[in-house]
Amino acid sequence: MTAQSFEQTEARAAVDTIRLLAADMVEKANSGHPGTPMEAAPIAYLLYRHHLRHNPKNPDWAGRDRFILSCGHASALLYSMLHLSGYDVSLDDLKNFRQLGSPTAGHPEFGHAPGIETTTGPLGQGIAVGVGMAMGARFLKKRVNDKLFDYNIYGLCSDGDLMEGVAAEAASLAGHLRLGNLTYLYLDNKITIEGDTQLAFSEEVATRFLSYGWQVQHVEGENLQDIDQAIKRAKHSPRPSLIIARSHIGYGAPTKQDTAGAHGAPLGSDELAQTKQFFGRNPGESFVIPPSVKAHMGEAIEKGAALESEWNDLLQSELPGNEKLSAWQQYADDMLPEGWDDLPAFPAGEKLATRQASGKTLNALAERLPLFLGGSADLGPSNNTVINNDESFTPCTVGRNIHFGVREHAMGAVLNGLAHTPGLLPFGGTFLIFADYMRPPMRLAAMMGLGVTYVMTHDSIGLGEDGPTHQPIEQLTNLRAVPNLTVIRPCDANETVEAWKAAVANRQGPTALILSRQGLPTLDRNSYGAAEGLQAGGYVLAQEQGELKIILIASGSEVPLALEAKTALEKEGTGCRVVSLPSWELFEQQNQDYRDKVLPPECNRRVAIEAGSTFGWERYIGRCGVMIGMNGFGASGPGNALMEHFGFTSDNVIAAAKRLLA
Amino acid sequence: MTAQSFEQTEARAAVDTIRLLAADMVEKANSGHPGTPMEAAPIAYLLYRHHLRHNPKNPDWAGRDRFILSCGHASALLYSMLHLSGYDVSLDDLKNFRQLGSPTAGHPEFGHAPGIETTTGPLGQGIAVGVGMAMGARFLKKRVNDKLFDYNIYGLCSDGDLMEGVAAEAASLAGHLRLGNLTYLYLDNKITIEGDTQLAFSEEVATRFLSYGWQVQHVEGENLQDIDQAIKRAKHSPRPSLIIARSHIGYGAPTKQDTAGAHGAPLGSDELAQTKQFFGRNPGESFVIPPSVKAHMGEAIEKGAALESEWNDLLQSELPGNEKLSAWQQYADDMLPEGWDDLPAFPAGEKLATRQASGKTLNALAERLPLFLGGSADLGPSNNTVINNDESFTPCTVGRNIHFGVREHAMGAVLNGLAHTPGLLPFGGTFLIFADYMRPPMRLAAMMGLGVTYVMTHDSIGLGEDGPTHQPIEQLTNLRAVPNLTVIRPCDANETVEAWKAAVANRQGPTALILSRQGLPTLDRNSYGAAEGLQAGGYVLAQEQGELKIILIASGSEVPLALEAKTALEKEGTGCRVVSLPSWELFEQQNQDYRDKVLPPECNRRVAIEAGSTFGWERYIGRCGVMIGMNGFGASGPGNALMEHFGFTSDNVIAAAKRLLA
Repeated sequence: MTAQSFEQTEARAAVDTIRLLAADMVEKANSGHPGTPMEAAPIAYLLYRHHLRHNPKNPDWAGRDRFILSCGHASALLYSMLHLSGYDVSLDDLKNFRQLGSPTAGHPEFGHAPGIETTTGPLGQGIAVGVGMAMGARFLKKRVNDKLFDYNIYGLCSDGDLMEGVAAEAASLAGHLRLGNLTYLYLDNKITIEGDTQLAFSEEVATRFLSYGWQVQHVEGENLQDIDQAIKRAKHSPRPSLIIARSHIGYGAPTKQDTAGAHGAPLGSDELAQTKQFFGRNPGESFVIPPSVKAHMGEAIEKGAALESEWNDLLQSELPGNEKLSAWQQYADDMLPEGWDDLPAFPAGEKLATRQASGKTLNALAERLPLFLGGSADLGPSNNTVINNDESFTPCTVGRNIHFGVREHAMGAVLNGLAHTPGLLPFGGTFLIFADYMRPPMRLAAMMGLGVTYVMTHDSIGLGEDGPTHQPIEQLTNLRAVPNLTVIRPCDANETVEAWKAAVANRQGPTALILSRQGLPTLDRNSYGAAEGLQAGGYVLAQEQGELKIILIASGSEVPLALEAKTALEKEGTGCRVVSLPSWELFEQQNQDYRDKVLPPECNRRVAIEAGSTFGWERYIGRCGVMIGMNGFGASGPGNALMEHFGFTSDNVIAAAKRLLA
Repeated sequence: MTAQSFEQTEARAAVDTIRLLAADMVEKANSGHPGTPMEAAPIAYLLYRHHLRHNPKNPDWAGRDRFILSCGHASALLYSMLHLSGYDVSLDDLKNFRQLGSPTAGHPEFGHAPGIETTTGPLGQGIAVGVGMAMGARFLKKRVNDKLFDYNIYGLCSDGDLMEGVAAEAASLAGHLRLGNLTYLYLDNKITIEGDTQLAFSEEVATRFLSYGWQVQHVEGENLQDIDQAIKRAKHSPRPSLIIARSHIGYGAPTKQDTAGAHGAPLGSDELAQTKQFFGRNPGESFVIPPSVKAHMGEAIEKGAALESEWNDLLQSELPGNEKLSAWQQYADDMLPEGWDDLPAFPAGEKLATRQASGKTLNALAERLPLFLGGSADLGPSNNTVINNDESFTPCTVGRNIHFGVREHAMGAVLNGLAHTPGLLPFGGTFLIFADYMRPPMRLAAMMGLGVTYVMTHDSIGLGEDGPTHQPIEQLTNLRAVPNLTVIRPCDANETVEAWKAAVANRQGPTALILSRQGLPTLDRNSYGAAEGLQAGGYVLAQEQGELKIILIASGSEVPLALEAKTALEKEGTGCRVVSLPSWELFEQQNQDYRDKVLPPECNRRVAIEAGSTFGWERYIGRCGVMIGMNGFGASGPGNALMEHFGFTSDNVIAAAKRLLA
């Protein structure tokens, strides 16, 4: 391809069509962001028409290149590309941009339209998710098949993306791991919402990315030839690539180009008409796709079908006798091998922190599930997230132990990228308190329905001396409030095994395992309800003797307190039931009958015990019950001393029960 | 001072004493982090003994230099320095390290011991808070008095700090603003918890900080002379400075030096004994402070007293006729000028988004309060956080409009640093959904009791087309669950004025204002309860006609729905009360009597309406009531359409009420 070729009518016409389609969409919706699509059209054109190996008719083809629109507000660009390239996104869909029920949502929503690789909009997330996808691709390439999984990840990002800390964390990790399969194109347009980027952003982006170990190139945002060459060089770089495109927001808009005015509102009919004139189009027409452009862009369909067919042939030729590859196929279809959940049980009596039980269970799972991988944000030995019989994921080795560094936020997003990779079952660990550092990607995982497992240890003031900055209080509440996130706080080693089973089985959303730092007795299940009860979220752990007078509800490390209190109360003749409630979400998925059996509505005398915030517990104790929990921050001191100081004692539970019984 | 001077016995003896004190503390507590104090002792010695302008006998002296231990896990170092320098931290306090009730908590807790400038422990926060302190210092210098507020901010940080995204955001902002009064010393020890930093962290830190516009120097961590010279150069740099000290974790420990083993656990008695031998100390003795070291370090007391006295003289000489300075004194004493809260009211009838009402109120406050300052994470025009009659805070101008860039996390921490600056009243804005990006500093503000105001607009699905990634669901719940954070969601312009009054008046903790994007009617307060009712958190907005049959509870944009429903229900003869409940925290501070008057316990028929998560509302509606809220994520579409789609209609409220009445 020569320099001239891109100056042919068809390329330029395609680029201009993309710009105007996006501007028309925003104008019709009377809402949205026209400026970025208009500036990024040349890049999007080159990627979708010339570089991406993709099949518009099968957006799920596992061997495809991935494209991430990290600046999700430019969604009109993505939808235009999908439509023009032959994806199942119609012109009517473009016309229904940002309308209720339309696949063309305000920001790209994973699953809402074909070809959306991940949900973006919260800035910086796309960059970090792409790092996860690139790691996933390398993992499949090195551990499953090096011919089939040689795909690349491309992304488009904005100033806002690069200002976010999550992008910095992820870019540092990507440089460290030398993810040569990753290329980002950065729209260096000098404009943010508040005005010129010089108001807040004067760092040297190129130097910064060089410091991370990236390849960095500069191009002019309207020069197709330059951009094309840069993408080619990026493909061949052994390091991740940043292509800095000096671009012009709202390119072609007579008064709004290069201003914040082109960012987040329709151009307005006059401005749009003049823009169309600038591009030699009829100012009176909207949503125009010249037939030549349609044909030119539509070639992606045939090309894509051929690419996938070739890949399928390769897959078929590689499959025979290739256990790894067959296994991968099964996983990619969201099927787990038989017996994966036949995990060892823990003998009663032993005192074991649930983080330790988790570590052992995780290793048992790793033996059974070769595509189960993960790590910790530099707390592996504390989170017990190390897979013993595998290597580390490093620049030189591709093991299943990922070292995220002290980068919780990037970890959350990378886990999403791994979960987007067909077949992979990712987990990530940190202290529960540091869930606060990674809330945005956890929310996106829940929204996208990704099967990520979070291993969150050191789950209460019981962690002791590290004090209030490290002691979760409201974190349990905060996670429980996230739609489609399952939170499980097991009370002993065997509930921990069940919690892991629930987490791995859940491919429809993320699961947070909430685990103790301190040792907890492994309950004798001959005397108590079976640990499998955890699968229902809550169950009767210890039946009352005689008439039911009071219910003690607890989770995690507070369950033993409830059991102690029960013994004491029943000595005095008070029928007392202990309900283990490790997961509100799982419990609320049960039918009313089951829930009423566990928590009979006629028994209003209820004491809940959980070393976390009292917030929300009225759901289970009603307005009459008592909650023994935390209403303020913790303190520094030995864990046992803190538990006593803050009222987590069986005496206190007994006293609360007696107050209710009085 | 010559190179030799630091090799004199007294300097080296002091450094070694610091190391061993810290190691002894951890050993005695059987918990903590000895390695970092041992490696950082030379730096701490130089700062506390030679560079910091501080007065150990008055840690609150406004003109002091600030020291931040960003790697808060090295708290034993800080406590040792405070003790040796003459702060009110006793040897017994050191011996009670990490014990319940001791001021020497596991991580430095602001307010627990004198000389702790800010709470640290969650990595990266200290770095970003220091940027806020440096901005605060510049603000006082340029806007109040250039002689009195010429102080510097020093910080000590670790690999973990630098890996965190919040540090990257803050460092980029600091470089942009050319904060020459900021110096960080970075312990480049090549070790993290999981092992060698090469596992996850191979970026070129020096290059990265150069890209931000920092001065960068390299020193050897044991070379007092070098470090001293570097600090001197940093002081004179017009840019923020990073001094990279190649240091050795656990310096002096025979087998644990330079290993992760020195990080988070006591050295053990044998190792500690050998360490003491290495430093020529008696291995059998603990907590030893040679008299010469005591005398040498204690000189800080006299020096500090002289410094402050000199400063006080300057203050007295500057005060006469200096309105700005007198005003500052008042603010620094947490006193606001009379009439500050005499704010304009909004006329009934006009439709105004609460974000717009907030913008006008904020400007009225800015006129009355010269030390009220803030900005937005690049959403100023949307958050309505721009102070109209003031400049921007830039490298060249020091106005009250801060441009944080798209850096919510750093903004949260910078606000903490500003709030630590005597007299300043900081606020920061973003969309409510992006509270998720800044949870750690918000939590720290709550823990430290800092008077920060968060302006969080676009507070529900009512924001419309931007869709689920931008629509808060669980965020209100999440913030309400944070201890000591006051959350206020006003229903109209006049409640917004009251909300701002409550926020500014609250100097004991942060306040989050939750504001609508969409227009809301300004209620006619002649017909309804006065907006001042907001100060009680909840109040009767509209009394029932006749007998009370049902209570409708709402906040923010859903209050008008409740009022409509009331009208309809009362037409049919059902006495219906509408309670505006903008703030759970304020409401729960009221006595039971008041709360029972607003929400009479005998009236169990209650409908709550809030376009956020239903989570936690059982507190007010009990188990019998109905909550009209969100149980899943939002959608993309026009705000009105979404409100209707998700059931936020008066018809739906009426239907729910009738179900309860049936």
